[in-house]
Formats: sequence, structure tokens, C-alpha cells
Amino acid sequence: MKVYADNAATTKMSKTAIKAMLPYFDGCYANSSSLHTPGQLAKDALASARADIAATLNCKPNEIYFTSGGSESDNQAIISAAAVGERKGKKHIISSAIEHHAVLHTLDKLKKRGFEITLLPVHENGIVRPEDLKAALRDDTALVTIMFANNEIGTIQPIAELGKICRSHGVLFHTDAVQAVGHVNIDIPSLNIDMLSLSAHKFHGPKGVGALYVRTGVALTNLIDGGAQERGKRAGTENIPAIVGMAAALKECAAKIDATAKKLVPLRERLIDGLLGIPHTALNGDRTERLPNNVNVCFEGIEGESLLLMLDGCGVYASSGSACTSGSLDPSHVLLAIGRPHDVAHGSLRLTFAEDATAEQIDYIIEQTEKVVAYLRNMSPVWKDLTEGKKNYVIQ
Amino acid sequence: MKVYADNAATTKMSKTAIKAMLPYFDGCYANSSSLHTPGQLAKDALASARADIAATLNCKPNEIYFTSGGSESDNQAIISAAAVGERKGKKHIISSAIEHHAVLHTLDKLKKRGFEITLLPVHENGIVRPEDLKAALRDDTALVTIMFANNEIGTIQPIAELGKICRSHGVLFHTDAVQAVGHVNIDIPSLNIDMLSLSAHKFHGPKGVGALYVRTGVALTNLIDGGAQERGKRAGTENIPAIVGMAAALKECAAKIDATAKKLVPLRERLIDGLLGIPHTALNGDRTERLPNNVNVCFEGIEGESLLLMLDGCGVYASSGSACTSGSLDPSHVLLAIGRPHDVAHGSLRLTFAEDATAEQIDYIIEQTEKVVAYLRNMSPVWKDLTEGKKNYVIQ
Repeated sequence: MKVYADNAATTKMSKTAIKAMLPYFDGCYANSSSLHTPGQLAKDALASARADIAATLNCKPNEIYFTSGGSESDNQAIISAAAVGERKGKKHIISSAIEHHAVLHTLDKLKKRGFEITLLPVHENGIVRPEDLKAALRDDTALVTIMFANNEIGTIQPIAELGKICRSHGVLFHTDAVQAVGHVNIDIPSLNIDMLSLSAHKFHGPKGVGALYVRTGVALTNLIDGGAQERGKRAGTENIPAIVGMAAALKECAAKIDATAKKLVPLRERLIDGLLGIPHTALNGDRTERLPNNVNVCFEGIEGESLLLMLDGCGVYASSGSACTSGSLDPSHVLLAIGRPHDVAHGSLRLTFAEDATAEQIDYIIEQTEKVVAYLRNMSPVWKDLTEGKKNYVIQ
Repeated sequence: MKVYADNAATTKMSKTAIKAMLPYFDGCYANSSSLHTPGQLAKDALASARADIAATLNCKPNEIYFTSGGSESDNQAIISAAAVGERKGKKHIISSAIEHHAVLHTLDKLKKRGFEITLLPVHENGIVRPEDLKAALRDDTALVTIMFANNEIGTIQPIAELGKICRSHGVLFHTDAVQAVGHVNIDIPSLNIDMLSLSAHKFHGPKGVGALYVRTGVALTNLIDGGAQERGKRAGTENIPAIVGMAAALKECAAKIDATAKKLVPLRERLIDGLLGIPHTALNGDRTERLPNNVNVCFEGIEGESLLLMLDGCGVYASSGSACTSGSLDPSHVLLAIGRPHDVAHGSLRLTFAEDATAEQIDYIIEQTEKVVAYLRNMSPVWKDLTEGKKNYVIQ
């Protein structure tokens, strides 16, 4: 059996999205900034995709800016809010300890430019406490940026509460919703979100395209200068095929979002229960405030990379954390933030699913993981020490 | 008859490029940063595309960085060179008056950060004089950025000479080769280029993807921060389908580049001759140092936009200048730089072709343009003044 369980890294494009894109490769391929008829047809497709995406998020079409993906959206949102703040003498930004590197590294850059960054801690289940946000807000806070759902442990943040606090303090609120859009319902106005990042390839759309929602009135700073595309805020020929594909994928996901969750949550629970049946295993992240398709656990006494490679040999394609940091030997900053010690954080496994997941696949994963974990523990000197009482278990 | 003559704005994707992309949408769709087998297959595709592109330009694969397109490449190249210069106290940049806005607007941004910008003038045929570059170089020059071929008037710059001057002065040389790659042979080492921008959709590849060549040893600054993709220099999940499509398109174009030019140059000449047969019409740009597929003329006494719309009605899809500035009412900065007065610059027409152009199409364009120009001049008060001797012709 082969199971692709790495949908948080990227998803398979839906047939609908592929079909939507194809006519724009060699049919309606003109530059949507061109005045001629083919250009205007491309422009119509762009407007229609923008309207579809806006409708899904309940915002206005002209509040959607197309970008090359989630990282670019995050960078532009944060750089823009920082510029707005700087003009008012506000150089403090609040974020969380478990953000994606597209957020954290942009904040590092701003730190070098004299911004002060407060990273809120998270609850042991990976949730930001609204009271922590309230306490961190200052008169010079320019921006709060907290992700909607975590890419590793799937935790869904209390965005409505966080948004309300920001709005009532008059502070801009950005959310990296790359893992959430297409997976959970998002109604922007009721959440008091000022800026939101999304990426198509996380919801069965194409790679290389994303969007940034920017509430009317929030000034955007260009990350890429040049032509006057995207109302002068993002230069570069509009990527119509990808934008159309993204809109089609989002529309499709949004239409069945509740049905997908209803199907996936029981499978997720079955998998969590199965994996927790392995001794000295712990769930990472909250059990309920969690993406329907995300399971992340730590197994004491083993190395995550060996686990992944052996599961790969069994046809189970999973990850230990974020694909964006897979080359790194450092343990996940997210797992450290929820209190896992270094060596336990190294023994993590993330399994993320799409709508086509089946109970058979879940049972296969449990069965294979049990075998592989037992095998690796059998060879592990750390495990030997634990079983012989020379070391204490961290996970009971 | 319908003729798409706006290939400088964007091209139709080649069947080869589409076919190359398709397997990566829902077949080999994994994240190339993932450790599992599907991820490694995607990574192999990425490496292979990088090698193919490098081979075409005669550079090393690890000198190619993938971006979202030409504008991003231009922005990153210039920002990077500026950062290198700034660290050495060098804050002077040389460019030309006819660059794309992706270059000019990035330079404007640097100007606000204290950089001094020298824009070299061009010869009346749109060519930068090497002696002007020599004279402009200073001890504090951090970068010279001159486009390979102009997007409006198709002029090909003496890149080898310019590159040699820069190298001998130890100054970084970037070229925006967005209009040149896939259309003219480019051998990077012999041209002394340090950085080069390219965009796939200008050579029958997909939109939303490009590359930046960066010579080994030149330090790159991130424009987009986040994951460690592209050796840490460009964050965001690798857009494998588009990158593979770009490599396939470039390989295809490169293989027939001389044959295409041999076919297109006579058609270009036929069209130029035909259009110059219309009285008071002038060619913009050099007659020989010119992209094989580019024709750009000014007709005295008419408005370019009306001309375009009427040609559109005849099935001829052309442009007046760059698609990136089509919303603007200002005359082209390129045409002003080659000495066209404002009102003459407004009467411009750019026709750009692909390999599939035919003599019948050329003759049809000439015939329709003759009719449309005559019709518009007949209604034009400016033309009336010219014919009645109340004003003097600028174009004889």
C-alpha cells in the first residue's frame, strides 16, 4: 500500500483545478494587461478568479492581491505593516513562538532594522493565550501576526478572540492562514483580520501562486517593483493559469469543507488513538482545536529521520515537521515551544491527509508505525537506557 | 484572419512545455524539500531542470536561482548588488534610460535609500554607447544594470563590450535578459555577465516562473524570507511543474534559435518595409541590432490606442509598448529616450512575433495597418494641421 500523508507539505492538484488551468496555457494565454481582445479575455478570467476567492473569504475582490505563494504573502504583509508603523513611530511587533519561518525570518530582518519583536509563548497544546496578547500590546505596537493554524502540529488559534483584541486596540492583525484556507471555514470580517496570507498548493491548487488579503485602507508596500499589476502593489505579469487554478481549487474545497472535516476528523482520531497505543508516545498539539487532517506525535527514544525513511520503505510518505526546514538538523522550534525536550522533539512524526484518506490507510499506517517504532527502539541506546531505568521517560 | 503579434507581452505555451509540466500536477506532485521518495523524485526533477537551464546559458547549475519571474529576478539582482556595494561604501549604480520598470522602479527605491543613480542615455537607435558607460564608472560604482534586449523597440545592446568594461573595472554587471533569453544565443562566460534575469513566459514557457543567474561568489540578498529553498536565497515551496515547463521551453527554443531567427528576420524586414511605405512613419530602434521578432514604428498624426483598438477589430493583436505600462497615459519612456517627441511617441505600434508567423500574416498586417492609419489620420486634427502646413512634420 502507498499512502501520501504529507498534505501539509503540499497537495495533489485536483482534477477540477487542472482542468480550469489548461485553457490558459495555449488558448487564452494573452497578457491580461494588454488592451487587445485576447488580453481583455485574460483580464476577465483574472477578475473572475479574484471574485471567487473573495467570495470564499467574504471579502471584497479588490482586497485580494495575487502573489507567488504563502511566503511572499507573509513577507509582504509584515513588511507593509512595519512600514505603516514606522511612519507613526511604532516599531514593536507581536507574533508567536510557533510561526512559520516566512514570518519569523521576516521578523528577524525587521529586528535588524530596529524593530522590537515579542514572540508570545504558547500553551503546552500549542495555543496562544489571548491574555498573553493583551499583556504584550504596547502603544508602539505596529502589528500582531499570529498564524491561523500551525503547519506542524495543526493547532488552530483562537483567531476571533485575537482579532477582536487587536481591533479594539487599533493594532493591525495579520494571520498566516496558509494551512487553514480550504481546510477550515474563514469569514474574514467576523474575525477582525486586517491581512491574511494563503497559498494554493496547500488546498489542491497549483504551486507558485498565493494571495494576500488586505483590508481596504491598509497601505501595502511593494516587495516586487516594476509594472503596475495588482493595482501597482505587486509587479510581474499576472499568472492567469495559476490564479484561475487556485480559484477553482478553493471554490471546490470550500464547497465541501464541512463534509471533508466530517470525514477526516474520525480518521484523525482513529490514527491518534492507534499511535498513542504505542507506549511512551505523545500527541503534539491540541486534540480538538486542530486541523481535521493533521496528526503529529512524538515517540520517545527514536530518531524521526530514521522513522521517516523506514516508513518510506513501507510506502508511507510522511514528514517529521515542516518540509521547509527538512534539511535542518535542529529540532522543530514548534515542538520546543510546546515544551518537548530536544531529543523527544527529534522523534516526531507528522501525518497529514487529504479528503481521499481511508480507514484502511489509517490502519496500515498504525500497523507499520508500530513495527518500525519497535524496530528502531530495539536498536536505540537511548531506549535501552530508558528501559533499564538508567534514564527517566519524558513521555509516560 | 487573426494574428497574435504581441509575443513580447507574453507567448503561447509550447506543447512540449505543457506536456513536460502535466505529470507534476497530480503525479509527481510532492514537495521537493520532503525526505520521502515522492519528494526526492520531485527534487530530481528540480535538479534536472536547473541543469538544463544552466546548460543553455553555459553556466553552472548552482548559479541558477528560481524565482516567480523576470520582475522578481530583476528586483533581487539589483537589491543584492546594492547590498554588496553598501557594505563596501559603494552607493552608485549605472543603468540606462530604456530599462524595464522592474529595474527603474527598484533603482528609484534605492535612490530613496541614498544611492546615486546614473541613467545612461541611448543612441537614437536605442543603443547604449560603451564610451558612455566608461565615462560614468566611478570608484563607488556598485553595479551596472543594462538590459540585454529592449522590450519595446527590440534593440540588442552590446552586452559583450559592456560586460568587458564592467569586469575590467571590477564592477558587478547585471542584465535584464527577459526579452532575449530563448530568442538570441547567450553564452554567459564570454559576456562577463555577473547576474542575468529571465522569465519563462517570454519563450513559450509558463507564467509565474523565472530565474536569476548569479555568478559563483556574488552574494545574494533574500527578497522573500522563510524556508531554506534555493540554497536559502529564495523562500517558498519550489514550483516544480513551472520550473520543469520553463526548462522544457528553453531547451526547445535554444535548439532552434538560429533557425527561428533565420525565418523571422526576413518576415520582420518585410513588415518594416511595408509599414515604412506608409508616409511619415519611422522605425523605432536599430534596424540590425534588433530582436528577430520585433517591429516597432511611430506613425505621425495618430493616437496609438485608437490604432490598437481598430487593429484589434481586424484581428491584429498588437500593442503600443510594454503591456506592463498599458494602463498608463504617459508616453513610453523608451520612445522619449530615443528622441521621439511626446505626440509622436503616442502614435507607436509594437508587433512581436513567434516562430509560427507567416508571410500572409505580415502582408495582412501591412494592409490593415495602412487602412487604419489612413482612416485615423483622416479624422485627426493634428494630421489636418500637418497636411495644411500649419505644423511641421517630425517624421519626414
